Amino acid sequence: MHLNVLSQAVPSPLFEGLWRHPDDRSATGYRTMSHWTSVARKLEAACVDALFFADIHGVYDVYGGSAAASVRHAHQVPAIDPVLLLPALAAATEQLGFAVTYSTSYHAPYQCARVFSTLDHLTDGRVGWNIVTSDLRLAASTGLGTYIPHDERYDRADEYVEVVRALWERSWDAGAVRHDAAADVFTDPAAVRAVTHQGRWFTVDAAHQCEPSPQRTPVIYQAGASDRGTTFAARHAEVVFVTLNSAKRGAETVARLRRRAEEHGRGPDALRILQGMPVLLGRTDEEARERAEQFTALSSPGGLLAKWCGWVGVDLAAHPDDTPIAEILTEDGRSVVGFLASAAPDRAWTVGDVRDFIATPRRPHRFDRLMLFGTPEQVADRMEEYVEVAGVDGFNLFPCPPSSGIDDICDLLVPELQRRGLFRKAYDPAETTLRERYFGAGRRDYLGASER
Amino acid sequence: MHLNVLSQAVPSPLFEGLWRHPDDRSATGYRTMSHWTSVARKLEAACVDALFFADIHGVYDVYGGSAAASVRHAHQVPAIDPVLLLPALAAATEQLGFAVTYSTSYHAPYQCARVFSTLDHLTDGRVGWNIVTSDLRLAASTGLGTYIPHDERYDRADEYVEVVRALWERSWDAGAVRHDAAADVFTDPAAVRAVTHQGRWFTVDAAHQCEPSPQRTPVIYQAGASDRGTTFAARHAEVVFVTLNSAKRGAETVARLRRRAEEHGRGPDALRILQGMPVLLGRTDEEARERAEQFTALSSPGGLLAKWCGWVGVDLAAHPDDTPIAEILTEDGRSVVGFLASAAPDRAWTVGDVRDFIATPRRPHRFDRLMLFGTPEQVADRMEEYVEVAGVDGFNLFPCPPSSGIDDICDLLVPELQRRGLFRKAYDPAETTLRERYFGAGRRDYLGASER
Repeated sequence: MHLNVLSQAVPSPLFEGLWRHPDDRSATGYRTMSHWTSVARKLEAACVDALFFADIHGVYDVYGGSAAASVRHAHQVPAIDPVLLLPALAAATEQLGFAVTYSTSYHAPYQCARVFSTLDHLTDGRVGWNIVTSDLRLAASTGLGTYIPHDERYDRADEYVEVVRALWERSWDAGAVRHDAAADVFTDPAAVRAVTHQGRWFTVDAAHQCEPSPQRTPVIYQAGASDRGTTFAARHAEVVFVTLNSAKRGAETVARLRRRAEEHGRGPDALRILQGMPVLLGRTDEEARERAEQFTALSSPGGLLAKWCGWVGVDLAAHPDDTPIAEILTEDGRSVVGFLASAAPDRAWTVGDVRDFIATPRRPHRFDRLMLFGTPEQVADRMEEYVEVAGVDGFNLFPCPPSSGIDDICDLLVPELQRRGLFRKAYDPAETTLRERYFGAGRRDYLGASER
Repeated sequence: MHLNVLSQAVPSPLFEGLWRHPDDRSATGYRTMSHWTSVARKLEAACVDALFFADIHGVYDVYGGSAAASVRHAHQVPAIDPVLLLPALAAATEQLGFAVTYSTSYHAPYQCARVFSTLDHLTDGRVGWNIVTSDLRLAASTGLGTYIPHDERYDRADEYVEVVRALWERSWDAGAVRHDAAADVFTDPAAVRAVTHQGRWFTVDAAHQCEPSPQRTPVIYQAGASDRGTTFAARHAEVVFVTLNSAKRGAETVARLRRRAEEHGRGPDALRILQGMPVLLGRTDEEARERAEQFTALSSPGGLLAKWCGWVGVDLAAHPDDTPIAEILTEDGRSVVGFLASAAPDRAWTVGDVRDFIATPRRPHRFDRLMLFGTPEQVADRMEEYVEVAGVDGFNLFPCPPSSGIDDICDLLVPELQRRGLFRKAYDPAETTLRERYFGAGRRDYLGASER
């Protein structure tokens, strides 16, 4: 089983209001190296595969037509740039992998290729790239990009990945760097070539600036859930995040993803599919329930609304309560209808219903359906079910609460998984890169490698 | 006296061919954290102000019409992204400052503002930004930008700095972050505002993504030598790099820079002007001469040509030897004529002359004119002269050879400067930020701060 732990370099990662938890260390720690170093060391001691950083550019200002709710509740703002944390965290650890979200919409591919080659060098091959196209509603306000419709964004991202792969895999031959002092040859010029690309979106005619790094191409993560996003994942991704509503119903989603990858000419073993879920643990039933109560009490309704409205792109404060929600959802929000329908199939959701559903702090039913909640034994049981029934390869865990939840994963959950023989008790020393951690030592047949 | 040490995350920083030096550690070390950590710790033990990273985007391909010479001689290629080194180096040190080159042409201002706020948080206020506009000849081939004429680049950079300053200084009030758990207020929304800018080059209408960092605005470094570059420095820079040909003739340049800053409404104390020079030390006259011989022997003519042609934008291999050099220089290369004229005023430089001048490895006259060369006593004498006669505030030192040259600066030169009372023997604990290191503890009246 593979375990990623997800975080974000913000005061209250993922859970709005939880910076108020008495054991919180994120509210001020998120902008310090010492905080993240101790998180990374803790995860490494538990043999976790990778620490994964979500990221965002800009400040969500949908709810109430302003950024006030996001700012007040620290919904992804303030947020430092997580890419800058990775080399220091790698220096503080030896085996833990790191993956970071980096947008194809806000950085030129030549720059992206250099950033990840640098990260791969400085982490000794322990880096992954979570490809996002960004929803781009914030692109205009930040001046970072221009709005592009959803599917077209993925067309652009396809071309983007083509360019960066070429820079990583085809520009420098293995052994190009000679260090031949006698002949005054540092690098053999015949073994380095310009990548020449002239496409719809990008033009490059230059050699890559970095010599080959341990992995060359970072491990490619992706989480697109739309049909076009799934196609993108099937084509490019190695680690895919899914959010299955149940183990049983999720089996078909997992099988379809693997099938789609095969349709794109990739092997049956090409994907590692990780179920993304919050995890809230207690040593006993009673402690778990107490913590659930505390979680509910500390959640910020305003923060939850800022998050949901920003995510979906609809201001729930701007429409009469009885407006059917389906009428006001934008292109990117359509999938939300399905999500709500699955939560209450018989209900004709209105704006008021949705607002109450999002903002009501006490939603105990959520703790068993959408969260890995309970004692380590109960949570391990559910994880086993996801592996066996849905066929996932592991989990992307969202620690809840953000700070002490990391300790709980390492101190309570991992030992239970290890006891059951479901999770490693030590890193395999033969697996020296993050790709080998996922696919086994010596694994080299990742996408793009064959181009050499 | 202020001392910066300049390097670059490349195998042979600044000196082409010197990766072949027997004591070299850069050729493979440049892409590892451990190498840079040991460099930073060494500089911190010597109480140096800051480690400064030059940078470049792309691969120079002017000489011979291809990248072959640059690649062969490792002239700034391979090159990792130095920005990614800083948080880890700050974690490995406590007082040393760090400055990094970051181009206004290749990154959006909103992104730049976030990167430097992140760096300033993670380094506890020890970061500086060397503003470059990039020469942009490589912009087309890398797809990172489009060519803009020299002076217009600076107009654009003026606007760029205006935008990032506004994000750093005006978007978040001091005390905006409340951590008020009882009121469920992380940040007071009334104390955070969008920066609204619609200019010729940039449009932004968003709040800064980061809460105020220790320095807010990083220390601004600049090195523009052209008239337009000098105006830019006078307007924005706090630390200015100059390359004076002699202490005596440099006095007027230094005085003019300070005058220009005052003309822009800044105080007489607004600039720290650092003379940039290579330094090659020996314990004795004889050792210094031996090392000069060795330096000359290890210099790569091909690398020097790749560097010079890339820098000036002219392919010396593409013109008959008797072509007058002034005829083929581009806009950016005009200043070179003055430089060559100062080296040999009576000579009518041809392409062949220049090529021989650049590529001839044995140029002993260079060691006294353009280099701080000799015993620690001799070098300290010359540095004193620059401070007293030219009026500079310190130096930006280019260690030669790149690896052992750092040791020589720390072990031979700094002790001599300390013995003379010219350089600190310990960091002043009251100076907690890099800005305070340059301008004194409590100094807060930097550009932009008054905007709050």
